[in-house]
Amino acid sequence: MRVTLFQGPEKAGTPAENMERVAEAAAHVEEGLLVCPEMFLSGYAIGREAAERLAEPVDGPSAKRAAMIARATGTALLYGYPERGADGKVYNAAILIDRHGNTLLNYRKSHLFTDLDRSMFQEGDGHSPVVELDGFKVGVLICYDVEFPEAVRSLALAGADLVVVPTALMQPYDVIARTIVPARAVENQVFIAYADHCGVEADLDYCGLSCIVGPDGVDLARAGRGEEVISAELDRDLLERTRPLYTYLADRRPELYAALMHGGRR
Amino acid sequence: MRVTLFQGPEKAGTPAENMERVAEAAAHVEEGLLVCPEMFLSGYAIGREAAERLAEPVDGPSAKRAAMIARATGTALLYGYPERGADGKVYNAAILIDRHGNTLLNYRKSHLFTDLDRSMFQEGDGHSPVVELDGFKVGVLICYDVEFPEAVRSLALAGADLVVVPTALMQPYDVIARTIVPARAVENQVFIAYADHCGVEADLDYCGLSCIVGPDGVDLARAGRGEEVISAELDRDLLERTRPLYTYLADRRPELYAALMHGGRR
Repeated sequence: MRVTLFQGPEKAGTPAENMERVAEAAAHVEEGLLVCPEMFLSGYAIGREAAERLAEPVDGPSAKRAAMIARATGTALLYGYPERGADGKVYNAAILIDRHGNTLLNYRKSHLFTDLDRSMFQEGDGHSPVVELDGFKVGVLICYDVEFPEAVRSLALAGADLVVVPTALMQPYDVIARTIVPARAVENQVFIAYADHCGVEADLDYCGLSCIVGPDGVDLARAGRGEEVISAELDRDLLERTRPLYTYLADRRPELYAALMHGGRR
Repeated sequence: MRVTLFQGPEKAGTPAENMERVAEAAAHVEEGLLVCPEMFLSGYAIGREAAERLAEPVDGPSAKRAAMIARATGTALLYGYPERGADGKVYNAAILIDRHGNTLLNYRKSHLFTDLDRSMFQEGDGHSPVVELDGFKVGVLICYDVEFPEAVRSLALAGADLVVVPTALMQPYDVIARTIVPARAVENQVFIAYADHCGVEADLDYCGLSCIVGPDGVDLARAGRGEEVISAELDRDLLERTRPLYTYLADRRPELYAALMHGGRR
């Protein structure tokens, strides 16, 4: 399966403008999966008022437009957006739409990052389902979620081969893109596709450094700091070769992990 | 606290010879903690017969010699050895002896690595306690254990500031020393001291690459491939500076982690 990441836009436009950037990118790709960053539709650091105003239901106008783009280009799409829940609350969500325009999953960020997230969003209370796409089992996390090994492990235990992560990683956190994300790929024997913003938004200086990493921890593609489209072919044979070398899921000792069900020291 | 790692010996000798290498190194250090690799006392890839023959109880002759070295040099010691349990079984263990010659903890490897471990050892059934040493709370893992995020998280939740890991990492697993170990330090906000073998033993080609990594994921010290002693001063101020930037322990969502209590797909 070909996975393509859109690291951008350098300057967020209106939701309609941002969705047209998706259409252009998808027309260029015309296969596989195109991933855009966290809160791609609206921009991320937009504050509570704008998040409330721009939030859309899971089947809102932008999702309908995205489904049209997916059908027209034959490309599955995953992007972040502010979701207006049926409960009236606003979530930091990501939606995955297949090439036929069907919504395969909608996920709400469950680990909120500082007041940036907390000022805008209600936290999600569940994991992404793991769904089939082009022969790969795919789960989704959003940004800060992937920094918790528990979150990625949960998707791996549910059978994920690929974890897709729209993100909005800012300075001084390069270590997440360079070290934590590859570690997650190795320790769970999954591909990870990590799609970041770039440039400056409000007082955030985004890291860029979007990446597609294999289960051996090696970058299949890695962006720089600016607006960029990167792409890689995911090879099932690589999973078949590395999983016998990294048998973590079989060798876990869940009976020793009871402490993980409780809180920490701080 | 000063932490020193002995990456070696290039050729394992008898237990008495190896212990004399510790004495030489400790005499040179004369402070803090000196860490030697997994199964340092006997060599690692020695097979079942030798492991049975060389196994010693936790208060055996080598531990008594180590306590003398610790007292004589004012250096705490941690090293791996084959432990003969009171149950008669042989464990892959590590012992921590303070500068007064007191045994602070003894830990038995709980995640056994392939038939290499399984042919020699009974698996341990608990975590290391977290003990105080020079103002740092210290826990221990052995080699493969540290590759499981659950194991390191358990020690972090128990309050560890420093996780010490005697190891026997071999090719083709450089990614563990270079990526997984720094990720563990960041995601748990702990220092990690990872002490590997070097050279060739039986059909194992050891990676070397022993390291002392800070909670920012940056190497404080990193060895090459050959026999080497590396050292770093652990600075509590660094923990105080990074923990407010990486608030993982406070931001975990244990109510979402129930799947971790169960096995995997393979």
